[in-house]
Order: sequence, then structure tokens, then C-alpha cells
Amino acid sequence: MTGPIGYLGPAGTFAHQALQSTGATHGRPFPSVITALDAVRDGTVEASLVPIENSVEGGVSSTLDELTHSETPLMITSEVTLPVQFSLVARAPMDLLDVRSVATHPHASAQCRRWLTENLPNAKVYDAASTAAAAAEVASSGRYDAAICASVAGDMHDLVHLADGIADNRDATTRFVVVSPLGTPSEPTGYDKTTVVAFIHTDRPGALLHTLQQFAARGVNLTRLESRPTRTTLGTYCFSMDFEGHIAQARVAETLMGLKRTCRDVVFLGSYPTAQRVAPQVDAGFSEEDFGAARTWLNGLLGS
Amino acid sequence: MTGPIGYLGPAGTFAHQALQSTGATHGRPFPSVITALDAVRDGTVEASLVPIENSVEGGVSSTLDELTHSETPLMITSEVTLPVQFSLVARAPMDLLDVRSVATHPHASAQCRRWLTENLPNAKVYDAASTAAAAAEVASSGRYDAAICASVAGDMHDLVHLADGIADNRDATTRFVVVSPLGTPSEPTGYDKTTVVAFIHTDRPGALLHTLQQFAARGVNLTRLESRPTRTTLGTYCFSMDFEGHIAQARVAETLMGLKRTCRDVVFLGSYPTAQRVAPQVDAGFSEEDFGAARTWLNGLLGS
Amino acid sequence: MTGPIGYLGPAGTFAHQALQSTGATHGRPFPSVITALDAVRDGTVEASLVPIENSVEGGVSSTLDELTHSETPLMITSEVTLPVQFSLVARAPMDLLDVRSVATHPHASAQCRRWLTENLPNAKVYDAASTAAAAAEVASSGRYDAAICASVAGDMHDLVHLADGIADNRDATTRFVVVSPLGTPSEPTGYDKTTVVAFIHTDRPGALLHTLQQFAARGVNLTRLESRPTRTTLGTYCFSMDFEGHIAQARVAETLMGLKRTCRDVVFLGSYPTAQRVAPQVDAGFSEEDFGAARTWLNGLLGS
Amino acid sequence: MTGPIGYLGPAGTFAHQALQSTGATHGRPFPSVITALDAVRDGTVEASLVPIENSVEGGVSSTLDELTHSETPLMITSEVTLPVQFSLVARAPMDLLDVRSVATHPHASAQCRRWLTENLPNAKVYDAASTAAAAAEVASSGRYDAAICASVAGDMHDLVHLADGIADNRDATTRFVVVSPLGTPSEPTGYDKTTVVAFIHTDRPGALLHTLQQFAARGVNLTRLESRPTRTTLGTYCFSMDFEGHIAQARVAETLMGLKRTCRDVVFLGSYPTAQRVAPQVDAGFSEEDFGAARTWLNGLLGS
Repeated sequence: MTGPIGYLGPAGTFAHQALQSTGATHGRPFPSVITALDAVRDGTVEASLVPIENSVEGGVSSTLDELTHSETPLMITSEVTLPVQFSLVARAPMDLLDVRSVATHPHASAQCRRWLTENLPNAKVYDAASTAAAAAEVASSGRYDAAICASVAGDMHDLVHLADGIADNRDATTRFVVVSPLGTPSEPTGYDKTTVVAFIHTDRPGALLHTLQQFAARGVNLTRLESRPTRTTLGTYCFSMDFEGHIAQARVAETLMGLKRTCRDVVFLGSYPTAQRVAPQVDAGFSEEDFGAARTWLNGLLGS
Repeated sequence: MTGPIGYLGPAGTFAHQALQSTGATHGRPFPSVITALDAVRDGTVEASLVPIENSVEGGVSSTLDELTHSETPLMITSEVTLPVQFSLVARAPMDLLDVRSVATHPHASAQCRRWLTENLPNAKVYDAASTAAAAAEVASSGRYDAAICASVAGDMHDLVHLADGIADNRDATTRFVVVSPLGTPSEPTGYDKTTVVAFIHTDRPGALLHTLQQFAARGVNLTRLESRPTRTTLGTYCFSMDFEGHIAQARVAETLMGLKRTCRDVVFLGSYPTAQRVAPQVDAGFSEEDFGAARTWLNGLLGS
Repeated sequence: MTGPIGYLGPAGTFAHQALQSTGATHGRPFPSVITALDAVRDGTVEASLVPIENSVEGGVSSTLDELTHSETPLMITSEVTLPVQFSLVARAPMDLLDVRSVATHPHASAQCRRWLTENLPNAKVYDAASTAAAAAEVASSGRYDAAICASVAGDMHDLVHLADGIADNRDATTRFVVVSPLGTPSEPTGYDKTTVVAFIHTDRPGALLHTLQQFAARGVNLTRLESRPTRTTLGTYCFSMDFEGHIAQARVAETLMGLKRTCRDVVFLGSYPTAQRVAPQVDAGFSEEDFGAARTWLNGLLGS
Repeated sequence: MTGPIGYLGPAGTFAHQALQSTGATHGRPFPSVITALDAVRDGTVEASLVPIENSVEGGVSSTLDELTHSETPLMITSEVTLPVQFSLVARAPMDLLDVRSVATHPHASAQCRRWLTENLPNAKVYDAASTAAAAAEVASSGRYDAAICASVAGDMHDLVHLADGIADNRDATTRFVVVSPLGTPSEPTGYDKTTVVAFIHTDRPGALLHTLQQFAARGVNLTRLESRPTRTTLGTYCFSMDFEGHIAQARVAETLMGLKRTCRDVVFLGSYPTAQRVAPQVDAGFSEEDFGAARTWLNGLLGS
């Protein structure tokens, strides 16, 4: 991609850091997932990088829902995973016990909850629109004593690090996806995943079980399953799913068609290389060769 | 078919009667299922009609096993069902209480067991190779007092009917199949069934369950499932199955390929019109149109 | 319950309104789901009412996660559903086109997104900790022109309604649960649901499918299935589930024991009456009578 | 057992040999499976040993059907497996090429088919009621040149062995069961199996799949599944099944009750030690301890 790539800004957030890890040099921050994806829809940018899932906080609802309900179809073309580490930053060095107010994004405070209780007993936490905005606010006004943010955001604003690595879970990871206009998926790499949203027939008992059996019958492993409200009645859900393999592979193609036939609707959101670049294990009977051999056998029986 | 059609003889058996019901005029009896099918294999006849299933006695093992283990592949090209009615015949009129010996095929005596106990208390039953052979034996020698056979067999040998309709179950039915050399199946009629033998991986727990899920995932209904020994170790089985639909239909083709990939082996034994000529009900999502629409959708996503 | 019932405050939020709908007169607001549930854990209140699910925004992560990972076990004892309607309120009447700044909780702005775009083209939206806090802020300072909040919150602060019923989805509903210390569930009413969290064996392919089959084998219908990260590695989930029936009913008890045996862990979160008070349909073979009859049959075979 | 044990006679058959292998000294032959089982029903014998399955010929229909449809309930109390070896016997030594007629039971000739074709090219095979009867016939008359029978039967009649071990499959095995009046099953040994007949709801698509899922949900492995006609309409079957475990074990008891609730009818035919005396592997989550722990957990939740 040659033009600018959008990302969930402002500059200094984890999304920015994730974008840089892809080698992209021309990023453009947007204030929200919605605006970042709108910029893809209207052609302002070729693609945007937005968070989709965090190992502690779970799925990022706004990303999941924007992809699902988009009138202009979008497609995930790659993913990036990033370890999430938070720092506590302030305008000047100070004792932790003197910190009375901390600004940060609610997801960040949730991930540092235990550390905050133990180390900042006198601080009240205030919600900010982003961790980067919290850092900017601390840098520009005396409203808050400190901010919790990505290390880079503190540096951008010449803030002092009071503490680093303060997340309760040291292995916290966020997964970001690069979203482009719907187009032909790139060639299979051998270590791809596919993302779809399945609207199951909620009035049929066992519909989710039958949907999962569509996968099982073709030896396709689900790696993520997340229910989201359909935005109509309470208790009706659609399911955002990741699974191993690429739409151009027979086991995935047959599964997708099986979902299409048996679900109320299916939104295809892309086949793209996994960040881990590890080829999935394919069970006996489900490889491309197995599918090809079975097709040859069938064609022989049909006399064609 | 213009040449002679083989059938499980001798003349006067139910197979003969079933063949006549198809309009075939040029039948040729064989002494056993094996010889009738050997005559197909070596080209002596174009096809042979043999029994495959009886509503009281169950599957006809020799037919099932000959079709399964045939080195020259054979194929079922049509089926005939026939109500099974037995008569008690003798050389001359006699009182039932005076009947001391009755010859018949073991399947026939099994189906008339209750009637025999109640009406022929003084008779011993002797096994014959076929009901027609029993009638012939009674006609030609004094060895047995009476025979249980098809009505037509008594008539062929000028025997007297002591009783008719003596089967314990008045609704007993036998299903016969016409077996031809393996070739291209005839065109779908809309009311077809398909017969296969699946050798499941018996060393994998739940293998039969997974095999049945191959059918369920494509909305294909099984109408017959019969285990047969694989002729090796006690406790290893293959499964002879009938199911709705024709190999040229997408839901059946995909199921067959799924079986081929996930079973140790699959023997295809034909797609042919059902005797009932009733179109099966196809669940929502599994019609030819549904398969076609899902393929079109997939091709669109693939940009092809 | 005679003592105060906690709820997600401040006063004037939908949780407050939901609590009032139960007839409870002695409510005590808490600033967060965590503090409301901590008050149950330490005995400050007998129970607390917190939101668990919204028909537009989905599951409330903090409630789901606090219930799942609580060291002091908690239990849901009842549920309340509430239609969610938002109002736009200000200090004095003003033209909508003059509104430059609006404060509200991000969930509220998300639910009014389209209305805001069409009716407040000149306004910037600012995040507040709650819709009630937004109303309070508007009432007490000139920082924001208007707030989006529950109708009652505008009234509490003597604010003027600029518009009512501004949610994009008129049928938006939030489900609240009353959470108590773990104890013996109340008696079945005939229209109960049960909530659990299942930690499936994520290293076993098809584990979710097998978990759902535990339900299917006992005719138990799932009504909610939501994955949540286990807070360890990215890609390992637990599943928060609601299903029809009460732990004291045989089909539910057997399902729960089946989950307990086949999952890595199961957290029981209560059996309690549904807000709809509608008895679920129980399939043939799964009623209390059916379970009782099967047990009687088995005991007869065992000679006991 | 102290009284005589019935068996499928005459003396000299494999059933006789199987009975002797159990250490029983007081056997009483019956001319058919039906009469052997009638003798159990009317108290003439305490139990009878009959064949139920052969590794080459498959299930023994008369035994399966008599057990299924018995008005006086019967129960399998033990099983015996026996390698099946056939001998060709005659009145005096003779060249194989001179053998013109061979008598034997159809099952025996089927199992020696290839050997007969290759070694007795000039012989015609005649059906006898049993292999022992064939040997007796050869000994007492000149009607047939030779008989195919169990080795012991040739010896009983002072016949000469022309050839031994002539079965096409050297590993052919027959399984016999000892059938007693329905009573309390013996204590579990740790290596038991259970036999039932399940009449599934044939008017419900996927009923067999759902029945197998009753087993899968409790980790119970099927070791035999055989369809039999219900003796009514063609195409309606019941299923004779063996599975690992004993009715007194929780996973089997729960499976049996699940079948009872979800099938049209279930006939329990006994829990008894396997001939192999090998304890089955029980998957994680399905042992007696696992069931006990889950019950304890549930009782704790119920406050009982």
C-alpha cells in the first residue's frame, strides 16, 4: 500500500505502535474506530488499523459491530498482535502516595486495577477518551496528576515515568486488524485464518450446535467465537468467528457455503495471514489433497 | 435392456415374481445370489435381480456381502418391492392335522412360525434350498407331505393349496434390487436413493457418529443402516446404507466426498429411482438451488 | 430483603430505575459494578443490581468478569429487563443547531449515533463516567451545553428536555441482575433460567461443540452464549451461558454435572425466575416426569 | 448354575464346544435357537447358550430377534467367543477330486467358499440343518460323500478327516451368549459390556444420530450396532447394540435412562463380563469418580 494507512489515534496509542510494527511509515490517526473505518469506506485512506480483541478485556465491540453492520462491505486483510504494557507518567517526579488523580482509558484502568489499589491508594481514576489523550491532558493542564498510557505516549509529551509495566497481567496482548474495502482475498500463505459473522436462525433450537457441526464436518477449527447482539431484540445474537484456513482452500470454501445455506445470513470478513505465521494442523481427510482425491473419485463415478 | 435378466431362482420364487412385475419377459434363473451376480460380472446377463431386504427377516446377507466385496464392481440400477405371501401346498387334499413334514426355506418357516405352531401341531419343518425347491421336492417325491412356497410355485407343480396367506405378518414385504456392472448412473428422477457401503475407522471412538454427521451437515436422510462384519476380526463392521437423493445432486455428491475422505473406504453401489416414486422432503438450505446460490456467493467473494 | 440494595449509580441511571421497578425502596448507589459487588461480598448490602446485557451494546464486560472471577462466590437471584430510552437535556431551552457540546456515557452516544448526526450536526460528544454524571455536570457547570441521559436524571437536576426518545433503536433493552452471596437457590417457579461460566478445554479441538452437546443430550436450550477472555493468553476463552430451567430440575442438574465433568471448570451463577415469567417449552423426553419414569425403569432393572 | 444348561444342538456343534469351554458339564441340546430359549422361558433349563454373532456371517438373526421380541423377558448373563474351524470329513479316506457331494449348514459353506472352489471342483454342496446333522447324515447314509463340520462332530461319528482348517478366513470367530430369565445383573467386574435394543423414533429425521449422541455425551463406546427390522413396515428398524460398561456404573445408567427417554422403546438385555476380560478405557470426565465428584458438587450447590 502506498497511500496513508488510518489507525485508531491519537498518535501514541497502541494502535499507532502496532501500525509501526508493520513497517508502515505513513499513518493517519482517527479519533474513533468508526471514523477510521469511514475513511476506508470513502477512500480517504486505503486501509485502517483498529483493535479487535484484547486478551484481558475481550472483543472490541465497536470494531466487531462496525465490520458486521457496515453498509459498504469491508474486509480484514492482515492482523498484528502486540503485547500491551502500561506506564504511569506525570509532569514531574513525585511519590506514588501523593498521586491523587489519574486519567486513562477505562480499558487501561481495568487492566491495572490491582496495581492501582496496591500502589496508588490515594488516587481517583478518571476516564479519558484514550490513553494518549490522557497523557496529552496531563501534559497540558493541571487537571490530573498522572496518566496511564503506552510508554511512547509519555515520551511524546516529555512526561516523567513514575512506573512501567504496571498491568496486572504481564502477558496482556491486543490484536489489531487492517481493514480494507471488500476485494479479492490475497493468495493463501499456508498459515491463514478466516473471519465471518454468522446470523444463525435463532428461532430454531440447537441452531448454534448445527452451525458448529458445519465446521466439524469439514475438519475446520474455530479459534474465536464471540456473540454480539443483532441490535434488535434482547436475546438475539450473531456470532463473530475466526477459524483456521483460507477461503481458497476446499475445506474452508465448503464450510463457508455450508454456513451460507444453513444460517440466516453470513458476512465474510476476509481470509488473511495469521500474525503467528504457524501452519495449522489439518486432520486426516481434510487436506487439499484429500478434497482433490475425493472429487476425482466422485467424478469417476459420475463418468465425467 | 434387451438380453436376459438373471434372477435368484428357481422359477416360481418371489424373485421371479418381482422380475415379472418390472415387465421383463426374458428372465434366467440362477441357483444362488452368488451365481446370479457372477453372471453379471462375466457378461452372461446384463443384470440380475436379487433380494436385498425383507421386512421380517432383515437384510439378505449374501446380497449385501457380494455387493460389498465384489472384485468386479457392481451397481444397483433399480429396485422392486413385493408383498410376500406364502401358501401351504401338497400333492393332494389332506387334513392339516395329518401333515407330518413340511419343506421350505428357513426364511419362510421363520415368517410362518406362529401359524405353523397353531395349525400344524404334528408337523416337523425341514430346510430346503428355496421355497420353489421345496415345492418341486413335494411334487416329485414322497419325502415331505407339504411345502411352504409362493403361490405361483404350487401352481407350477400342479400342487393343491391347503392354505394361503399363512405368513404371521400380513404386511411382509421383500425388496429386490437389479444389479448391473458399474457404469454411469442414470439421470436423477427426483425420487432417487443412493446405496453405499462405508468402512469406518473402527479404531477411532465415535467414528460412526462422525460418519452420520457427514449426512446431517448436508441435510441427507438415511433410510437404511445395516452393519455387516468386515470378514476379518470379530467386532469390526462396515455399514451398508441407503439414503435419499442422487449422486448427481449437490447435497449427495458433497456427502459422498465427505464419507470418502473420513472413512477408511467407501463402496458406491448406485443411485436409482425408489420403488415408491415419492420425492423426499429436502430441508431448507439443502436444495439444488440452495447449493447453487451458496456457490455463486462464494465465487463472488473469490472474485471469480 | 430488608436492608439496602446496592446498584450501579449514581442515582438517576437506568440501574436506579430498574431497581425501583422491583419495588425495592431502599437503594444505595455505587460508583462502579466492582464496588457494587464488593459491597455484597463484604456484607455492606444484601444484594446489588447491576447491568449484564444490552440489546444494542451486548454483554457488560465488567459484570460478566466480576461474577466469573470473584474469589468470594456470588449468585444471581433475579433479573429485571428495562426498555432504554434516552433524552437530550440542557440548562435552558435552546435550538438543536446551537448545541456545540454534549456529555454522556460512551454506550449512550453509541446508541444515539444516527440521531446525533442528523439532529446535532454542530455538536462534539464528550465522554462522561455515566449518563447521570453527564446530567449532573451540565446542571452544575457551563462546560457542556447538553447531556444525553435517562429521563429521570434530567428531572433530578431540573434540566430542560430538548428531545426525548432519541435512541436510534426504539426497542433497546437492558437486562439487569440482582447479585447476592452464594447460597441455596430459591425454589423453581416453572419459568427459571440458569447462568454458568464454562471454562472449556481449549487444547481439545471441538471442545465447544462437545459442550453444546451436553445441553442437546438433555434437551436444554441455551438462551445466551458469550465468550470472554480467560485473562491469560490471547485466544483462550470462557463462555458465559444462560439456559432454560432450574438446577433443581433433573434435565438441568444432569447437564450441569455433565459440564462439570467435561469442562476444565464450571462456575455456577444461579437459577432464578426469568423476567418474562414464561415457562419454556420442554421437548418430549426431557420433562421431570420423563426423567422420573426413566429412573424408575432403571431402578427396576437394578432390582432396587 | 447347578441344573442343565441348554445349547443350540445337536451335540457336536460349535455351541456345544463353546459350552464345554465354560466348564459346564451338564449340557442339553435343543434343535433351534427358539426351542433353546423357550426352555429358559418355561424353566426347563436355567439358561441356554446360543450364537449371537459371527465374524464372517454377521449377527445371528434368530437369536437377536428372539431376545428382542420375547414376551417373557430374557437377559444375557455371560458371553463366550470361539474360533471357528471347519473340517471336511467322510466315511473313508478318498481323493478330494472324487468328492461329488458335500453336506453342511449354509453358514459353513459360505465360510469355506473359496476353499471349496479350489479344492473340490467336482462337488455339489447340499444344505443341512446344522454341521453336526451333516456329519450324522454322512455317517448314517450314502446320500452325501462328505460333510463340513466342527472337528468334534467328525470324531463323534468316527468319520475320517479329509482336510482340517478349511475356512477361507482363518481368524473366523463366533460369539455365543448365555441367556437366563430377566433378573438382577451380576456385580460389575470392571470389564463388562451391556446389550440393549433401541427402537428409535423412525419418523424423526436424525433420530439415530441423536441416539448415538446419548452415548457420546456420557463417554460410552459402542462396540456393536446392528439394525433389525421391527417386523412391521419395510424400512423401520430397531438397533441391537453392545457398549462398554455395566448398568450399575453411572455413565451407563445415565446413558440407559437417556435412551429410555428419547427412544420409542428400549429393551435391556443384560450387563455381563466380556469374554476378553479387558477393562475398557474410560475417557477423562466419565469415570465413577468423575460422576461422584460432579454429584457432590451439585449437591453442594443445592445446599443438600
